[in-house]
Amino acid sequence: MSKLSKAELKVLKIGGSVITDKNGELAPRTGEIARLTKEIQESNVKRLIIVHGGGSFGHPPAEKYAIKDGFKEDSQKIGFSETHHVMTMLNGLLMDSLIWHEVPAVSVTPSSCIITESGRIKHFEDSAIRALLNMDFIPVLYGDAVVDSKLGFTILSGDQLVSTLAMRLNAERIIFGVDVDGIYDADPKIEKTAKLFKHLNREELERLQSKFCKPTVRDVTGGMFGKIVELLPAVESGIPVTIMNATKPGNICRVLEGKPVQGTIVGKD
Amino acid sequence: MSKLSKAELKVLKIGGSVITDKNGELAPRTGEIARLTKEIQESNVKRLIIVHGGGSFGHPPAEKYAIKDGFKEDSQKIGFSETHHVMTMLNGLLMDSLIWHEVPAVSVTPSSCIITESGRIKHFEDSAIRALLNMDFIPVLYGDAVVDSKLGFTILSGDQLVSTLAMRLNAERIIFGVDVDGIYDADPKIEKTAKLFKHLNREELERLQSKFCKPTVRDVTGGMFGKIVELLPAVESGIPVTIMNATKPGNICRVLEGKPVQGTIVGKD
Repeated sequence: MSKLSKAELKVLKIGGSVITDKNGELAPRTGEIARLTKEIQESNVKRLIIVHGGGSFGHPPAEKYAIKDGFKEDSQKIGFSETHHVMTMLNGLLMDSLIWHEVPAVSVTPSSCIITESGRIKHFEDSAIRALLNMDFIPVLYGDAVVDSKLGFTILSGDQLVSTLAMRLNAERIIFGVDVDGIYDADPKIEKTAKLFKHLNREELERLQSKFCKPTVRDVTGGMFGKIVELLPAVESGIPVTIMNATKPGNICRVLEGKPVQGTIVGKD
Repeated sequence: MSKLSKAELKVLKIGGSVITDKNGELAPRTGEIARLTKEIQESNVKRLIIVHGGGSFGHPPAEKYAIKDGFKEDSQKIGFSETHHVMTMLNGLLMDSLIWHEVPAVSVTPSSCIITESGRIKHFEDSAIRALLNMDFIPVLYGDAVVDSKLGFTILSGDQLVSTLAMRLNAERIIFGVDVDGIYDADPKIEKTAKLFKHLNREELERLQSKFCKPTVRDVTGGMFGKIVELLPAVESGIPVTIMNATKPGNICRVLEGKPVQGTIVGKD
């Protein structure tokens, strides 16, 4: 623990839409996984935690069996098993590629060390993660189906995990690698004049949120708001979040090297 | 926790030699995995924990990089990553088949919730396992490369895990599924008159051990002694161990149903 200084650790979130095809089912983007892991290798980054999303692996069974809502009937049980299992499969593809590229990465299974209460992380045994970081391993976690002390079970999003890990381990920065360039003032896929924010503070973010996040208008700004909400506690505690496009070759390598990339930085002030 | 009564829980160890070809590398016996998981389904067993070995997945990288001896040089690090990763791969094959057979099994990653000290389990966060059992899920664990507070890292054998889990969770019985029929008074592959012990108590086992386990004579009784030593604490605490042949069709189903099978029962008295 003593080696973990705030100036060092980065938490990298890789969106499920980056490493899987969300229109498919169990559809990995193996080419993208290979490219990303090569960029992580080339960046020669040392103090890093990776968290990835579920994409077309975790989301379909989680929705089909309503795992997030908790245990209601026995027929959901096999769905819980399946949701966790397909996430370990997606994680396995990423680990395979990281290790192939000689990145000393070690998967840490959220459901084996975390219990939530009504969907929020309540108990988190992070000793293994701390020990791995101290030995300069790169722990890799993911959104997972987990045990919940109130609901029986639920879904723990990779986003909540990112925020919690960053705060617990005094991360210097959160890097949020998604399939868009950052946060826009309108949907860039519809409005060609949509403007990318280079920097947003909490206040500006909340103003945007109340403007765009109406019940009938979802994800108009590039689908980032739901995710950002989970990161606000980390932002509030002083950890800036860089939202950037991980599908653009070279971006992840550059950001891990500490070089500037196009994107939106969400900071406290 | 209250639901866990001693009369109910079984801990099933599936040897690495049962589900992999030990002469190969990363060589699963997929037919055997399918048969075993079907037998587990057919037994309709409720309160069960499964632990499996590494066979031709975990053992080759663990030996190549001397992971058991602990961290000595940086070149071992990728070996630690690899050993853990290939174990998750083997586990994934078993989980895939269990879930395909609609067994509500959930993998629990030892290295995510256990830290050893000089090779012995020191810290074990078992809340998720207890909660899963209370919901009638079947937790599945395996021998793994783990963090060690003295050695940096080491190998945690599935056998130590079986013994620890059985004692912590007050198991009624340990079932040790291997590729031989039990413990013999000589190597049955060499001596055709070798006799299978139906029952051994601790004293008889120790006498046999001193007779057979000389430095120059290894595994002469069917290769069981090294494994049995790990189970002795559980036996001492009153949990009997049934050593039986999991490669014989029907055996696992029968033993999980509580029916008699050929094998050696190791008990306290």
